[in-house]
Order: sequence, then structure tokens, then C-alpha cells
Amino acid sequence: MAKLRIALAQVNSTVGDLAGNAQTIVEWTRRAAGRGAGLAVFPEMMLTGYPVEDLALRASFVDASIAALHDTAARLAAEGLGGVAVVTGYLGRDTGLVPRVGQPASAAQNGSALLYGGQVVVTSAKHHLPNYGVFDEYRYFVPGNTLPVFRLPCGPAGAAVDVAIAICEDLWQDGGPVAVTRQAGAGLLVVPNASPYERGKDAARLELCVNRAAEAGATLAYVNLMGGQDELVFDGDSVIVTASGELLARGPQFAEALVVADLEVPAADPGVPPGDTPADPCDGTQMTIHRVVLPPLSGPERAAQPQSTEGTSPVWPRLSPPAEVYAALVTGVRDYVEKNGFGSVIVALSGGIDSALTATIAADSIGPERVHVVLMPSRYSSAHSVGDAEDLVKRQGLHARTVPIQPMVDAFQAELGLHGLAAENLQARARGVILMGLSNAEGHLALTTGNKSEVATGYSTLYGDSAGGFAPIKDVPKTLVWDLARWRNAEAAGRGQTPPIPENSITKPPSAELAPGQLDTDSLPDYQVLDAILDDYVVKDLGVAGLVAAGHDPALVDRVVAMVDRAEYKRRQYPPGPKITPRNFGRDRRLPITNRWREPGRSQSR
Amino acid sequence: MAKLRIALAQVNSTVGDLAGNAQTIVEWTRRAAGRGAGLAVFPEMMLTGYPVEDLALRASFVDASIAALHDTAARLAAEGLGGVAVVTGYLGRDTGLVPRVGQPASAAQNGSALLYGGQVVVTSAKHHLPNYGVFDEYRYFVPGNTLPVFRLPCGPAGAAVDVAIAICEDLWQDGGPVAVTRQAGAGLLVVPNASPYERGKDAARLELCVNRAAEAGATLAYVNLMGGQDELVFDGDSVIVTASGELLARGPQFAEALVVADLEVPAADPGVPPGDTPADPCDGTQMTIHRVVLPPLSGPERAAQPQSTEGTSPVWPRLSPPAEVYAALVTGVRDYVEKNGFGSVIVALSGGIDSALTATIAADSIGPERVHVVLMPSRYSSAHSVGDAEDLVKRQGLHARTVPIQPMVDAFQAELGLHGLAAENLQARARGVILMGLSNAEGHLALTTGNKSEVATGYSTLYGDSAGGFAPIKDVPKTLVWDLARWRNAEAAGRGQTPPIPENSITKPPSAELAPGQLDTDSLPDYQVLDAILDDYVVKDLGVAGLVAAGHDPALVDRVVAMVDRAEYKRRQYPPGPKITPRNFGRDRRLPITNRWREPGRSQSR
Repeated sequence: MAKLRIALAQVNSTVGDLAGNAQTIVEWTRRAAGRGAGLAVFPEMMLTGYPVEDLALRASFVDASIAALHDTAARLAAEGLGGVAVVTGYLGRDTGLVPRVGQPASAAQNGSALLYGGQVVVTSAKHHLPNYGVFDEYRYFVPGNTLPVFRLPCGPAGAAVDVAIAICEDLWQDGGPVAVTRQAGAGLLVVPNASPYERGKDAARLELCVNRAAEAGATLAYVNLMGGQDELVFDGDSVIVTASGELLARGPQFAEALVVADLEVPAADPGVPPGDTPADPCDGTQMTIHRVVLPPLSGPERAAQPQSTEGTSPVWPRLSPPAEVYAALVTGVRDYVEKNGFGSVIVALSGGIDSALTATIAADSIGPERVHVVLMPSRYSSAHSVGDAEDLVKRQGLHARTVPIQPMVDAFQAELGLHGLAAENLQARARGVILMGLSNAEGHLALTTGNKSEVATGYSTLYGDSAGGFAPIKDVPKTLVWDLARWRNAEAAGRGQTPPIPENSITKPPSAELAPGQLDTDSLPDYQVLDAILDDYVVKDLGVAGLVAAGHDPALVDRVVAMVDRAEYKRRQYPPGPKITPRNFGRDRRLPITNRWREPGRSQSR
Repeated sequence: MAKLRIALAQVNSTVGDLAGNAQTIVEWTRRAAGRGAGLAVFPEMMLTGYPVEDLALRASFVDASIAALHDTAARLAAEGLGGVAVVTGYLGRDTGLVPRVGQPASAAQNGSALLYGGQVVVTSAKHHLPNYGVFDEYRYFVPGNTLPVFRLPCGPAGAAVDVAIAICEDLWQDGGPVAVTRQAGAGLLVVPNASPYERGKDAARLELCVNRAAEAGATLAYVNLMGGQDELVFDGDSVIVTASGELLARGPQFAEALVVADLEVPAADPGVPPGDTPADPCDGTQMTIHRVVLPPLSGPERAAQPQSTEGTSPVWPRLSPPAEVYAALVTGVRDYVEKNGFGSVIVALSGGIDSALTATIAADSIGPERVHVVLMPSRYSSAHSVGDAEDLVKRQGLHARTVPIQPMVDAFQAELGLHGLAAENLQARARGVILMGLSNAEGHLALTTGNKSEVATGYSTLYGDSAGGFAPIKDVPKTLVWDLARWRNAEAAGRGQTPPIPENSITKPPSAELAPGQLDTDSLPDYQVLDAILDDYVVKDLGVAGLVAAGHDPALVDRVVAMVDRAEYKRRQYPPGPKITPRNFGRDRRLPITNRWREPGRSQSR
């Protein structure tokens, strides 16, 4: 057996910021070295951020990623860190494999690289490419068919460990790199990931790591990206497990961290030479084991070999279910604001729960001093609406102003004389104009306050309450909106702080207040009932027969399915917002607008 | 040699309308029979429409497609058409092939089926799945690895032809079904397609068909879908070419048609038995040739065998370049309106060229009596603007009204006091509110008037001039907007009609008229220069170095690239519109909003 201290750098990279991400690699490698690690592992596509989408098709961007990789290796050595083996994800280019049919000739690869001694020692690429849900990796990448195994000197002279590298989806699919790791007899499998958050995914992830470590017959070190990128939020939650299933270390959720652990793994067999060996075919494709032996470094480089200075990392405790979702939303908002360079946000506050929660998430993300709210009462706004909104402002110390919309509505109505739904939409749109005007004039990012139940059913006004640049609770069903508000208040109370959200905003019956005495329940089923149907239809993709079989009321099912189908055009123009469910209304669910398919109803014979 | 009359049904199917599409198959098969054809071929995924996007993941929809396929076969026989061999595309399900890793277990297939004698005789599936540009077929389908070859009785007793089936992308990629068709010795290769229009694609398509017919050693019959589906427009342009490259027939562009031709192809070798034969591997995958022999029908079915009643089809003439684009836009608008059930459209008319062309396209699509326009002058609108808009209304006989926006703008400004860009946006948004109010109140589809140059550079107001449900000229660069307007006027003049677009709208310098004396050239380069850069950056995806090497002014390149990159968030909320270029701003180009990548400028050393 050989001993090795490893550091997983669970960090927040930014799409396109090659210089900034390279700097992160250098800084965190320095921290890893300072904590005595001889091996530091960074997430998938760390150098470019993830996902880069069609930037992967642009030759200039791929070139820049490859150049930055070599620069980073040289910089690490120049800063005395060449003796730490650094594994990182980057955007590479197919280097001689036969491209798949239909792939551009100069296809990119989702690559990993080992940096050591100032060099890019070996590169490889993701073997299993996800092309479902939010992922489109067949669009961008050719698969890699090499398992790199590098022999890392560690401990006393001559001792070494064989370390294999796989990337993210390579763990989620059977066969391929995991099976080949066992064939290669590697003692350690390191896995860079960019695995987006979904509710409850941490449990699935740990189980996966335990199973794959057993299959690989190796200790498995899983490092995940942290941070928000448009609709995706990466939760960190890095994991180290042994081949026998022992959890050695686990990173925090939604926070950067260096996860350091001491591993004891089988020493490399010095009789196995470097070079290429074909693996036994394990999933219908032929993979090659590519072995390299890292030289023990001497001279100034050797001096950089880590000294143990601190202890290893704990298993960070898990967040509770609401805390986890809330942290995802806060992370998503904060990174959208910061990575896009906004100084502040603006929220239209109605006194209702959606805008109250949105403003609270914003304040928790970037600080209340950067949150501006605007109250836009109409003649249908109840006294408690304004009161509840003002109460929230006071509790949190937000910047508030009030712009009554009646004069603007009157000006339109003098010309248009709208009635019914058109008149309701007019009020929402007048508010949208005010919100966007303040956003434009003062540079705030406008946050949209719609929840997933509204987005699903189209219970919103295009360019009205749906206006804005980012929609924090777009993937949060209404019932979960209430749960999160209650949790956030209780959490504050538990810390002896003022609960940020007025109790009345949580308990009163929801209303859009666009007509006298209007309630959401005039147009929608009770939210408990509605959200259960929506989860089965939107997330689980059941057809009408399946929904009825699942126990939902057939008449309600027909009504809800029709509402969801009809609202596709509104969703197409909705702002992005953080994904927290297994299927959000973004890249995860792609339906035509022009679509005459009507799920066969229960009354139809089939 | 054997003789055979074939009919290609270049028809317009609708996504999700299984009953309507099945009815189209029956009706056009009857027409084919009436014109003496023994074989009728329908487009790719005819029965479901194309693309169905995530409907392919819904089990209830796949089930319904399969059920509709069997129903259609039975109906054809019941209506006396069982003796016509009908090849059609449909949405099927993998029937025993090993699914690819990462694919859902019950993965769908992009299928073709042969209907004959009341039965679904044989099915197969697309082998090459496109997953680039607007296509995501790896998301939905498992590839087929069977080449079906059916022996179709024709002419005098005993004569028969071997007919192979491939689907769309199977032609565009090397190897696979085309090569296997030659191995199978089929005399005829029929190819259902759903190939979206792009400028100039018809020439590429004909060249492809000629080359592939030669490779297959067979006559090739290519039938393409016709009609609009959200952002895609299918142009028809069906083609029949012989193995030696002779063009036998060609369908019209942007029109439904039955393309009928008499073929003389090698008779089937009666010594080759039905059953499965492995093909020689030709693209790294193992395909199987699956042969079936169709019985000559007798009794009532036999009576349905076609009698020649009319002549065969001509080679329809090609449209000129502007006529072709214009027809694509008219088709896209008409089908979006009709398939989504709108009775009318509404357009905000400014007197400028973009709204003038948009209204003209709308009138040509659905008739001027269904086109409503609203003039919304402000204090910055010039006299000629209102005059030019009124002139257009009169020329075309549109429904017009005028709603001056100053009272609404004043109402907002009394509270907000906006200046500069925010004040300009306010005017555009007041117009957006009016347009959407009239749309909601009267049920018109609101058409958005922005062109591709504006959408690219973000020279538009979110929820202002970008408001609407469909954007007819979204993929049309400004210089092409002028070309189309000139072409449309000349075309009218050539027919002795009043040119629909006022000359002044074409010739005056473009202006958003949101500030005194404002011109587009205050903010943007000359459109000739701009559009050339945009084509190289957006369509050809050149980096900055590539743009400069292509001869564009370096300073302008920097400025334009920065504008395009910054406007991604606006495009994400832009309405859909018909694609006419090789890369539109829809599914064709997918870039992150949060994106710190800045193309290295000329001044930076690299």
C-alpha cells in the first residue's frame, strides 16, 4: 500500500474567463500544496467553465483553451508548484481519433489534462457524452477512447500510485472508463465533474460513487464544480470513497472548498511499463489504456513537494431539503448577478409571497443594500398588499419606492378601452414598463417573480409580470415557494433574527390583484392539487392516461394539460432562472409551439 | 428493365396532428392512384410532423403514432388503395436493437414504413442521426441499422422492382444506407425527407441526389416536406434522378405537389430470396439488408391497381434568389398563423422598411383582409413616417388605426423622469403595450418587425419593438430586407399591379425615431458593412482574427463582435421567426448569456 494526500478543488469557474479560471487553478494548487497534497484535482472543463455551448464550435475559443492549458502548466512550475500533480478539465480538440459521422472535422473534446513539472503530461477526453436533459454533448464533442493512467511518485523513495482519470458522465454509464480502470489495476480513479444540482441529487451521487468505486476496484475521488451558470447551478458536494465503500471525505454544498484527504491505496506495480495497451472491449467500443510514469522531481521543483501542514477535511454535513433548494437559488442569483457584472437588482414587490421570496433570495445573494424594490399598486391592490410589501422592506432594509400605476393605465385606456383579460394584462404590462425603465435608467438587473406553477400554466402576462432578466423561482412550484418562505423565516427565528418575510404574505390566499376580489383559485385548481399534476406531467412526462392512473382527477388533468400545452409560446420568451428540479422549463424540456397534439382524454376510447 | 410509375407526395404535415396527417396520406395516395402510380412516397415523419422535439420522449405520443400508422394502412385498404405501395415516415420505437448508452430504454426511432395490402409490411429507421445546427436527433432517437428492400410487382405479370428506403440524413453522410443500397442491388432508392430551407440549399440538394444516386447505383426519389413549423420552413423541392444523373422530375418550391414520374429501372432478380443478409460494414456499423417480397394483389385489392390517367410531372422551374427567400417567409408566416389557429395578425407600422416588409409578407401570407396595423406616432416621428405608413395601408387595403403614444409616455415620465436610452426604450415599450393590448383584446397574432441585423446587435428594446408572437424577418439581414422590398415591388410592377411598398420607405435613411433626428447610423455601422461582418461572425463563426483576415476593418470588428456578444440575453427572449440562413438565432446558435469570453482583439498579442 502507498499513502497519498489528495486535494479536490471544488471551485467556481466562469464560462469564457480563461485567464480568471487559470488563476483559480494556480491559487488553489498553492493552497493544496500548502496543505500537503501531492495531487490536486479540478472540475470538468474548469479552464473554460461549463457548459460553453456553441463556443465549443468556435476554433478561436478551442485554440485559446489549449493555449491557456499549456500556459497554466508553465505558470504552476514557475511559481514552484510543478511538483504537484494537477488534474483539470479543459476544452480540447480531437487528436487523431476517427470522428463520428456528422461531426465537424475539427471537433472539440471535453478534455482532462495532467499538469506536472511545468508540462501538459497527458490529456484524454470524456468517453460517455450526455445528450439528454440539459446536455447536448453530441453536438460538440467527439468521445475519447483512452483511459490515462499516470504513476505518481508518493511517500518514500520508489513508492508510487497508479491514478486513472474519467470525466463526469463516464461514471453515470455502465462500461467504459470505470471497467477499464479495474482492468488497468489503478489504485485511484479521479473524476472531474460539472454535475448540475437537482433536488435530492446528492444522495444519488453518493450511491453512484460507492458503486463505481467498487466496480473500478479503486478509491474514487469525485470533484464537482460549484456555482451558477445561466439556468444551471453546480452544488459542489465532492466525494471521496474507497473501493470498499467507505466515505473518506465530502465537500460542502453550494460553497467553494478544498477537500483534502489522506488515501491509502495499493502501490503501483513497478513491473508494468508505460505505454499503450488495448483494453478488453466493455461497452462495444475499443478503449486504450495509456500509461505514463511521472519522474520524481529534483532540484527546485522537488522543494515544492508538499509538507503536511494541516489536517484533512471533514465530511461536511448535508443541508436539509429546503435549505438545499434555497442555497441553490441564492447561488444561482448571486452568480448570474456577479458574473454578468450587475451592481444591483430590482424587484417588483406586490405584497404576495412570490415577490417576497424573490426579494429575500436576492438580499441573501448579494446583500440587501444592493436590492431595490418598487411597489406599483393599482386600484385593485388591497391595503394589506401595500402594507405587507412595506413590512418586508422594513424587515430587510431594502431600497424601496412606490409608483402607482393608475395614471399610466388610464392613459392607455383612454385610447384602447380594454376589458377583461386584456385589461388585466394591461396593468401587468404597465408595471413591466416601469420595472424595465428603472432597470435601464439605474443599471439594476430586473428579477422576475413568477413561480413554476405559473410558468407551467401560463398564469402570467407576457412582457408584464414575466418581464426581467433573471427569474429566481422560475423552477420552484408554488407549494415549494411557501415551504421555502416558512423555512427561511424559521431559520432566522432559530438564529434569533427577525424573520425576513411578513407572515401575512405567507398565509393569505394568493391573488394577482388585477381585478376586484380576484383570487388565483378563480382560474387555477388549489395549488397542492395543481403542483402534484404538474410534477407528474412536466417532470415525469406522463401522458393523460398515466396521470389518471396516478390518481389525479380526470377533469382536472384535462384542464391542466391543456393550460400547460397552450402556454408554450409564453415560456419561450421567459427569462432564464435556476434549475432545481429534474426537468425545468429551459433546455430540459423542448416542445414545439406549433403543436396540435392533444393527449387523448379519458373520455376518448383508445 | 422494369417500368414503374412513382408519385412523390410533397405535402404539408402538422406537428402533433396525427388524424389530419393520416387523412393527408389517404387523400394523396388516392391522387397518386388516380394518376396511375403504383408507389407513393411521403416525407420523413409525415404522420407526426417534424420536428416533434420532446414529444418523442413521451410514451403516449409514440404509442399514438404507431397506432395511427396501423390505422392508416387499414384505411388505405378499406378505401380501395391497398394495392398502392405507400412509403411514409412516422415516429416509431426501437424494436430490439441494442440502444446506445445514455439513451432512454424505450427510445424512439425516426421511422419509415411500407404500407401495402392493408398491412404495415416493413419498418426501418434512420441510420444517420443529425445532431448539429437545428437538429437534436441523438436526444430522441436510436439509429436504425436495417436497410429494407421490398420487391414491388409492376407491369406485366412477374415483373418486379427492388426498392430500398433511406431517410434524409442517410443521404448527407457517407457510408450506411446509400452504400448498402448498392450492395443490395436495389433498382430504386426512395428517401423521405424533412429538410429545412436555407438560402441556396436547392442547388446543394440536387448535387447531393445526383452523387448519391450514382453511389447507390439506383434511381433516387427524394421527397421533401413542405410548410412551416415554428422556426423551420420546409421548401419541398423533391427530386428524382437516375443513377446516371438524369433529372427526371423536380417538385416546386414552397408548394404542395404530387410529383409523378415514370421510371425504368433494372428488374429485380427473382433468384434473390426474401430474408435478412448482413451487409458489408461500410461506416463502422453493421447493417442488415432486410428483403420482403410483396405479393401481387388479387380480388378487390387488385382492382385498386392504378390505371394511367394523366401524364407525369414537369421539372418545376426554380425561383430566383429573392423570390425563394420571400416565399420561405410567406410560408413560415402563413403556417404559423394557420397551424396555431389565429384568424388575423397585427403589425406596428412605423413608415420604415422593416414594418412595411413585415406587413407585406403578412398580407401575401393570409390576405390583406386579415392584416391589422397600428400606427403609433410619437413626438419624434417625422411627417413622412406617418405618411409612408398610411401610403402602405392604402396600397394594400389593410385595417389601420392610429394610437399616438405621447399621452402614455407622458404618464410614465411624470413618475419616472427617464432620460437617454431609458427614455427611448420607454417609447418603444409603450408601443409594445398597445400592440399586445390590441392583440389580447381582438385575438390577433402580434408580428414583430425586427430584422437580423438588429437582433444580432441588440439594436432593439426588450418588450418594446421586440414584443410579439412571431418575427417574420428575424433571420433577414437589413440589406436583404431592402432587396426583398425592391424585388416585391418590381414583381408587382411586372404584373401590372401597384407596388405594395412605398418607394420612400425603401429609400429613406433608416431611423428608430426615438430621439430627435436619430438615425441608425448614429449607433451602427453602415448596413452593407455591418451585414458583411455579421455574416462572417454569426453564420460562418469566424473569430476576430478570422474576421480581420477576411478583410473587415479591425476597429469595426471589435465593436460589432462586442455588440453581438452583449445582446445574447435579448435574443433569448425574442419571438421565433422563420430560418432562411445557414445559421439563425434559434436552435442553430446556442450561446451562454453568462459568458466572459472576449474574442482576442487585433491589438492583443497572440
